Amino acid sequence: MISVEEARAIILSQIKVLGTEKVNLFSALGRVLAEDVLAPFNIPPWNNTAMDGFAVRAQDTRGASREHPIVLEVIEDLPAGYVARYPVGPGQAIRIMTGAPIPDGADAVVRVEDTELIDDRHIKVFVEVERDQDVRMAGEDVKQGTIILERGALLRPADVGLLASIQRSFVAVYQRPIVAILSTGDELVDIDEPLTKGKIVNSNGYSLAAQVLECGGIPIQLGIAKDTPEDLEEKFSHGLKADVLISSAGVSVGDYDYVKQVLKKLGADMQFWKVAMKPGSPLTFGIIKEKPAFGLPGNPVSAMVTFELFVRPALLKMGGHKRIFRPLLKAIAEENIKPVKGKTHFVRVRLSTKNGRYYASPTGPQGSGILRSMALSHGLAVISEGQNPIKAGEEVPVIVMDRSFEDRESMSLRIEETLTEDKDLHSHDPGHKEHCC
Amino acid sequence: MISVEEARAIILSQIKVLGTEKVNLFSALGRVLAEDVLAPFNIPPWNNTAMDGFAVRAQDTRGASREHPIVLEVIEDLPAGYVARYPVGPGQAIRIMTGAPIPDGADAVVRVEDTELIDDRHIKVFVEVERDQDVRMAGEDVKQGTIILERGALLRPADVGLLASIQRSFVAVYQRPIVAILSTGDELVDIDEPLTKGKIVNSNGYSLAAQVLECGGIPIQLGIAKDTPEDLEEKFSHGLKADVLISSAGVSVGDYDYVKQVLKKLGADMQFWKVAMKPGSPLTFGIIKEKPAFGLPGNPVSAMVTFELFVRPALLKMGGHKRIFRPLLKAIAEENIKPVKGKTHFVRVRLSTKNGRYYASPTGPQGSGILRSMALSHGLAVISEGQNPIKAGEEVPVIVMDRSFEDRESMSLRIEETLTEDKDLHSHDPGHKEHCC
Repeated sequence: MISVEEARAIILSQIKVLGTEKVNLFSALGRVLAEDVLAPFNIPPWNNTAMDGFAVRAQDTRGASREHPIVLEVIEDLPAGYVARYPVGPGQAIRIMTGAPIPDGADAVVRVEDTELIDDRHIKVFVEVERDQDVRMAGEDVKQGTIILERGALLRPADVGLLASIQRSFVAVYQRPIVAILSTGDELVDIDEPLTKGKIVNSNGYSLAAQVLECGGIPIQLGIAKDTPEDLEEKFSHGLKADVLISSAGVSVGDYDYVKQVLKKLGADMQFWKVAMKPGSPLTFGIIKEKPAFGLPGNPVSAMVTFELFVRPALLKMGGHKRIFRPLLKAIAEENIKPVKGKTHFVRVRLSTKNGRYYASPTGPQGSGILRSMALSHGLAVISEGQNPIKAGEEVPVIVMDRSFEDRESMSLRIEETLTEDKDLHSHDPGHKEHCC
Repeated sequence: MISVEEARAIILSQIKVLGTEKVNLFSALGRVLAEDVLAPFNIPPWNNTAMDGFAVRAQDTRGASREHPIVLEVIEDLPAGYVARYPVGPGQAIRIMTGAPIPDGADAVVRVEDTELIDDRHIKVFVEVERDQDVRMAGEDVKQGTIILERGALLRPADVGLLASIQRSFVAVYQRPIVAILSTGDELVDIDEPLTKGKIVNSNGYSLAAQVLECGGIPIQLGIAKDTPEDLEEKFSHGLKADVLISSAGVSVGDYDYVKQVLKKLGADMQFWKVAMKPGSPLTFGIIKEKPAFGLPGNPVSAMVTFELFVRPALLKMGGHKRIFRPLLKAIAEENIKPVKGKTHFVRVRLSTKNGRYYASPTGPQGSGILRSMALSHGLAVISEGQNPIKAGEEVPVIVMDRSFEDRESMSLRIEETLTEDKDLHSHDPGHKEHCC
């Protein structure tokens, strides 16, 4: 049997980042930027006034004071968004609003409160102003040509606004992985088919598609393949248009051989493993016509957990994400949790917080058919192979999949180092001890 | 001036949860369930075998042992997904695979390893089995009629799988708020219009629409309204088809009156405030023809921060979410941060972790025109009105908007109580001290 870390390292070492595509700003939200974005012009684009007031020639204000105000002629009154028609000459001023460009000829701003109207054409100026006083210089925020958003950035609303402010309506992002999903087994009926005795519903097709959507992929649901080489081959072939293939069931003993035989015929170089984990165990991975293909177990929980541990980081890597693993935290077990001999045991737990600590309690029966226990969980407690049983009150690391419990109570959290995983990801060292994703 | 808490309490007290809609499973991902979902049948639906083996009548195995095996007739071999054609009679057995329904007549399972084939019609049974041994009872996981998902649940992939497993292809969820967004000002040009001197790009329309998308709303971009009563009235009217109206700019002194006059004409009962916060300050809220309407400041950062503090929780409440505020954490300031006299100061900060603690450092110049400082930030440090200056090395509460920094280092976090806010949300007590969202 192969360990979870070994299997993951082997898989990730064969996953490549997808190509790029141009998308509009709103589609770019939550996507990973695939280009360095440079400022095409200075921000602000021109010298402008930081205050409401009068654009003047600084030298004209020399010696001005309350006692000896200087009188200037107001040649124009500039509403927001408009430019002066005339330059400011000696002894002249133009009324401007904050943000307005400094008119030609002017080199400083006198604040409105330092002036007084004489008539609608003249003002008294009570202060002497310096050159560039209350002037925001062109390029003060961002100089033309500097990088304002870097390749690899996960785009958020402020980035969308920033791109709009430089009039970029489309940007290059990494493509979303297209993922074909196939369920196999004569015992399966689909969500809208009669559920006759002996049959079970193809829930994997839906939970896996939802997991694909949640990590930014585009699912193609191929539906159910019967346990025949013909049907398996047809459905798998239809999946080859996708970037990734996922099948569930058909890789445990019994029907194992059909899938293996079909994948071989399709030119797959598949590696069939029993991975030392519970739930999970039977896992297939390989490359078919340059497309990564995952064969997941058929049990609903096993399928979701193996997706979480192996497929999710692969899809995030393909999508250009830097962060491909979930955070791990340390929680206090509220019940005893047994290790499983020779396997890493992933236990579905609900998380809560008390007195500044995390607490984890198993979500009832852990049968790998019991999807409800997955729906109830916030994360997966990780009990490594060969570890002692975890007693109630002892700490256990938990992979966090849902943080909805989080802001329920003031708390003090500890989250494990996971950057090492990112490192290992590139060194593909299967030996590291990290069990997180 | 009104405080941030007062403004927020007044706003949230007037926000109602929207109606429900039926959506398919994939569209339901990330939505809030608006019905209690009951199990329409037992899960598993019938007694089935927990092991590969032989379905038998327990009484027929009485006295069986290695030394004195009992011989049974194998009347059928059941592949996965099929039901027995014949009942199990005295002295008979049917071969079944894990998960297969227990055939009529049988009441227990003998594991394959406790048997031996004699010929293709007969087996030796080496053990005595109890009634119901290795039988998974109907309804063992979920009893028919019990609630498997509760109204108010935020739907995740496992929930989608669970719904599929009971053949629910559509579920009732709370509607997504439709949000009309209007930018006002003659100085604005749109993302694809020539940026002539004196003009600035309407970035607010895009950053606000992205914020609406991020919290589950559906944006309608009305574009730019000129500073004329006619244009404002036309655009605002078009916005009334939405559930919520958001305008930016047009509520500060100067042009304030137009907007006020138009909103009055549309029958609005608006409350214009100067909110004691920086960035932000001018804010309008009111109800127009039963639709909540927000007038946000025009500066790009002010618009985003006021959306974050006032509009986001309102949209989440309308969408049926229980959690409508961001988590708060305590971080160590890496620079001195000044309070602002008489105002709550929200400072854009980058977060990092060292030696198990959070650190917050301001993202450079904090001018409310500098969108880049917003794009660079992970959160908003909150310095309450009347508070002492925060010195480098002291703790400051930070509203977390982006957790991408988080799994970079092993750390020990402290997140503030925010449940109180949810409580206040219902009591609408403007007095509470919580500054988080």
